[in-house]
Amino acid sequence: MNLEDIQDPHFLKTYETAQLNQLASEIRSFLIEKLSVRGGHLGPNLGVVELTLAMHKVFDSPKDKFIWDVGHQAYVHKILTGRASKFDTLRQHKGLCGFPKRIESEHDVWETGHSSTSLSAAMGMAIARDLKKTDDKVIAVIGDGALTGGMALEALNHIGHEKKDLIVILNDNEMSIAPNVGALHNVLGRMRTARKYNKAKDELESLIRKIPAFGGKLAATAERVKDSLKYLLVSGMFFEELGYTYLGPVDGHDVEDLIENLSYAKKTNGPVIVHVLTKKGKGYEPAESDKKDSWHGVGPYKIESGEQIKPQQQGPSYSGVVSKTLEKLSHKDDRIAVITPAMTIGSKLVDYGKAFPDRLFDVGIAEQHATTMAAGLATQNMKPVLSIYSTFLQRGYDQVVHDVARQNLNVVFTIDRSGLVGADGETHQGVFDIAFLRHIPNMVLMMGKDENELQHMVHSALQYDDGPIAIRFPRGNGSGVPMDEEFENIPIGSWEVLKEGDDVAILTFGTTIPMAIEAWEILAKSGISARVINARFIKPLDSKMLNELYAQNMPILTLEESVLQGGFGSAVLEHAADHHANVIVDRMGIPDCFIEHGSVTKLLEEIGITTPDLVNRVKALVKRKAEKGLLT
Amino acid sequence: MNLEDIQDPHFLKTYETAQLNQLASEIRSFLIEKLSVRGGHLGPNLGVVELTLAMHKVFDSPKDKFIWDVGHQAYVHKILTGRASKFDTLRQHKGLCGFPKRIESEHDVWETGHSSTSLSAAMGMAIARDLKKTDDKVIAVIGDGALTGGMALEALNHIGHEKKDLIVILNDNEMSIAPNVGALHNVLGRMRTARKYNKAKDELESLIRKIPAFGGKLAATAERVKDSLKYLLVSGMFFEELGYTYLGPVDGHDVEDLIENLSYAKKTNGPVIVHVLTKKGKGYEPAESDKKDSWHGVGPYKIESGEQIKPQQQGPSYSGVVSKTLEKLSHKDDRIAVITPAMTIGSKLVDYGKAFPDRLFDVGIAEQHATTMAAGLATQNMKPVLSIYSTFLQRGYDQVVHDVARQNLNVVFTIDRSGLVGADGETHQGVFDIAFLRHIPNMVLMMGKDENELQHMVHSALQYDDGPIAIRFPRGNGSGVPMDEEFENIPIGSWEVLKEGDDVAILTFGTTIPMAIEAWEILAKSGISARVINARFIKPLDSKMLNELYAQNMPILTLEESVLQGGFGSAVLEHAADHHANVIVDRMGIPDCFIEHGSVTKLLEEIGITTPDLVNRVKALVKRKAEKGLLT
Repeated sequence: MNLEDIQDPHFLKTYETAQLNQLASEIRSFLIEKLSVRGGHLGPNLGVVELTLAMHKVFDSPKDKFIWDVGHQAYVHKILTGRASKFDTLRQHKGLCGFPKRIESEHDVWETGHSSTSLSAAMGMAIARDLKKTDDKVIAVIGDGALTGGMALEALNHIGHEKKDLIVILNDNEMSIAPNVGALHNVLGRMRTARKYNKAKDELESLIRKIPAFGGKLAATAERVKDSLKYLLVSGMFFEELGYTYLGPVDGHDVEDLIENLSYAKKTNGPVIVHVLTKKGKGYEPAESDKKDSWHGVGPYKIESGEQIKPQQQGPSYSGVVSKTLEKLSHKDDRIAVITPAMTIGSKLVDYGKAFPDRLFDVGIAEQHATTMAAGLATQNMKPVLSIYSTFLQRGYDQVVHDVARQNLNVVFTIDRSGLVGADGETHQGVFDIAFLRHIPNMVLMMGKDENELQHMVHSALQYDDGPIAIRFPRGNGSGVPMDEEFENIPIGSWEVLKEGDDVAILTFGTTIPMAIEAWEILAKSGISARVINARFIKPLDSKMLNELYAQNMPILTLEESVLQGGFGSAVLEHAADHHANVIVDRMGIPDCFIEHGSVTKLLEEIGITTPDLVNRVKALVKRKAEKGLLT
Repeated sequence: MNLEDIQDPHFLKTYETAQLNQLASEIRSFLIEKLSVRGGHLGPNLGVVELTLAMHKVFDSPKDKFIWDVGHQAYVHKILTGRASKFDTLRQHKGLCGFPKRIESEHDVWETGHSSTSLSAAMGMAIARDLKKTDDKVIAVIGDGALTGGMALEALNHIGHEKKDLIVILNDNEMSIAPNVGALHNVLGRMRTARKYNKAKDELESLIRKIPAFGGKLAATAERVKDSLKYLLVSGMFFEELGYTYLGPVDGHDVEDLIENLSYAKKTNGPVIVHVLTKKGKGYEPAESDKKDSWHGVGPYKIESGEQIKPQQQGPSYSGVVSKTLEKLSHKDDRIAVITPAMTIGSKLVDYGKAFPDRLFDVGIAEQHATTMAAGLATQNMKPVLSIYSTFLQRGYDQVVHDVARQNLNVVFTIDRSGLVGADGETHQGVFDIAFLRHIPNMVLMMGKDENELQHMVHSALQYDDGPIAIRFPRGNGSGVPMDEEFENIPIGSWEVLKEGDDVAILTFGTTIPMAIEAWEILAKSGISARVINARFIKPLDSKMLNELYAQNMPILTLEESVLQGGFGSAVLEHAADHHANVIVDRMGIPDCFIEHGSVTKLLEEIGITTPDLVNRVKALVKRKAEKGLLT
């Protein structure tokens, strides 16, 4: 069938197994073809084709609620709910979102992007259903990686206790974003193989066979013991202990098996776990045989060869610069240890792990634990580095406040993907970290102007020993500036004048530095002399340099790829107010709304952070200054 | 012995059981007497007397590291490490801290106050030890309540996976701060009674007895099956599955049993769980028989009768006003449901739970789950109220951003204990919530001037249906203002002029309103006419009223019991900058450091938030205005 003709999933009700398998095959071809052009989350979606078909056959969405954990595996669901025709716009500005999106479809009941939220959301929906006395089913699909996230475990615990009717589909693909870690994973592994069960069962059966008069009441007892063993061992005793009915393991690529188990789950009272074994990338050989998880989220690729088409990059990736620098420093300082919450690959720490296998800790999706574990290391005079994406550090906010900063411990935060991230959209934009870190006592926060300054910052942070220190850096690659051989120590709280000028000061840092330099040139042609300052320390500010600006009566424009409320510009306003400075300050940054997906360039245009915008704002500021001068 | 003579715990090494029991008894008497004067965490400390003695006998602190989860149960540890003489200053300004404090003693290696951090901290310390190749032991003591916190579960998982030498003492008292909830608790309950094991064991033994020729090889097999059962059932199979050696359950008031098990744990490689059963309040009858947990943290009491001496209060508690209001509203609106993370008693929700047993959800210590579960309810057109302490909402920051605000869901946050909390100290001060909520898009944030306005705010928040809305209120009691019978709807973003004036505007909210009124009177006598504004909406600001102040060329003083960085004052600065207002703003609030324990009055004095301070700051502001006027 033409997938673009699908309006809603109702047609699946009459489909037989052969038809479902045929459709699965068509969906796979569609995904492989569509994603080859501009990329997307190929691996996770190829893994859930049959599962999604079975779910839509057995349940009645949107009456029954599907909650996709993380949400990057909802493409098949999008196809089956009438959105196949929009796949050419996937993850592009104003196009189809790469995650569930409530305004796109009534079948998307929960939006996400961060992991481990699905069980809590499902519990909320199940409670609402019971209070309203309706009979819809609530089904959460969660991966084995996401299940190690603390909030998923909190929810697992609460759901088991409350005995709500709620179906958890555990999509066990042995991989979260990277190969999974954690004891829970081992438990799942044991369930999968059921080796223990088999061994105990064999022994018991052998014992029973040796009993001469085996029958009647005795047999019943033996059966009960056997049942008890079976119950404990293979039937997901771990989950049963927590109060769930455990079904599985189910072959996640066998539609019939899936339908049978989901139908049984539908009839079962109380919370149910359906343990489904899937294979990421299923049906596309290059993705299926992928050991490095390079097909999880991909850019464009050649379908036949499986060759991924990497965009030309001018400079090295920022993540790579950070991890290379950490590697160099770790050779000299054996107190350094690096912690990542399931982002070994994303944060380019694979080589670091090879060089220092004892000093890299991938704790799985567990940002809270990662943060406080770093604090624990720091109490012992180690130099822990928490490598974490900006958006995921949000999960560790309390731990940064309560465990790290309050004890003023020497934890280095390397905050990856700060600022806008583009196609992953509003759940992933790293635009809040300045606002949620700046008000924490003892915290130092900085961002380099390029990859060379970034390496010096990593070095400087590891030299610093007066409390927590954080380095933001953007997603993507540097511009290819020359890299110094020797590390430099950047004095804490020191800014740098990049371009001299006397009419107005532009204070900015990181990704917006080039924009400021460009604006400087354009302004110079209009006769405006702007001072461009690399405000590389967001906290503490360079008080000396600010006081000079006040003394010189210069208006200030602050520019940041970060939220304006409580951001860097606000820090400058606070400083000016505290110093009784009679200065005009204008702030450019991200307005008070969530920023959707699209290329970073597009997004910046939309919110008015471009060179022409900057030039205009500076001109307006100079004009205001002149008018004020006339008044005074 | 005289407890005040103890310098360090080394003397315990030679103590016999009888001496230890004698000492336990003396410590109990000491605690009961000392705490009767000014209060403290009596129940938890009476519960761990023998445990703490056994720990200090078996291990060598500070070489071996004791990490107390939550930390309110470290009084016995403080006595044994030379701090008995300081108990008269417990929880008072500059006195002995109610939680572990590193500057107090080398025996305090980890500071805390929030729950569930101990395992992550212990893991960090164990990693540090192994990298340094030393042989110290790391021992975390965690309650069954704290174990349900997501970050503890993340750590439990990671520790089990990494197989680190690390001892977890599970202090299982069947109570966290309130009676515990959660499936995990049921698992612990089953372990405690081991009923299942006994049943299975009986059946198996009966089966084995019926086998005529039972001996030799067959017997060995039967034993193995029995071992396997035992392993699975009583030996904490739940924890064994996660990779731990499980010891217990141990009677937490039997010193010999404790010493034996801890000694065994000390010798065991890999992670060990020692499951210790204790009784909160042990040895003091009123606390031991307490069903309502009113002896967890107490004020002064009469030792003989167990009568707790409640301070005279002018008005009702703020928590009580909120829950009463919720109760009234819930009678009219069946969409309201209330969620609390283990604070049913603290947030005075017991009566609400009696009135609406189906609509109160105590999810245990699980702030992340609580927040996102509220979001799940809101997607189904319910009106969830998350009742949470300010300091604990820090744990739900990402969930507020990613799940609630990003989806713009109608979740009402009633933020208890906002502002300074006093004796609980720096881990519990509710001073960050404005800074971490204000920059979140779609968020509305308010605080009432008294308990009457608070009830109207609860009403107004539940009327509001355009996204998340939060109401802050302080710890403690109102001043006893008359309570309106009918609820009023407070327009979103509207401030209120409390006192007219033309020279200067004081913008403040909540607890600091009385200070502003008092200052107004004093200033009036000095001929300064201040306008006092109840800036009850922290977000959105009352733009109309601010613009009037700008138009009237009035200097502004902002006053908040909250951090200055990114706080309410900064919001006013941002507004003024965005509106090109040529206005002088001075900000009073909490400086950029953590605020220790002490009475709120003392603390406010120390940081310069008193009526005289306010009067002086206003006078200085008026003077600056006059000087500026001369210049212009």
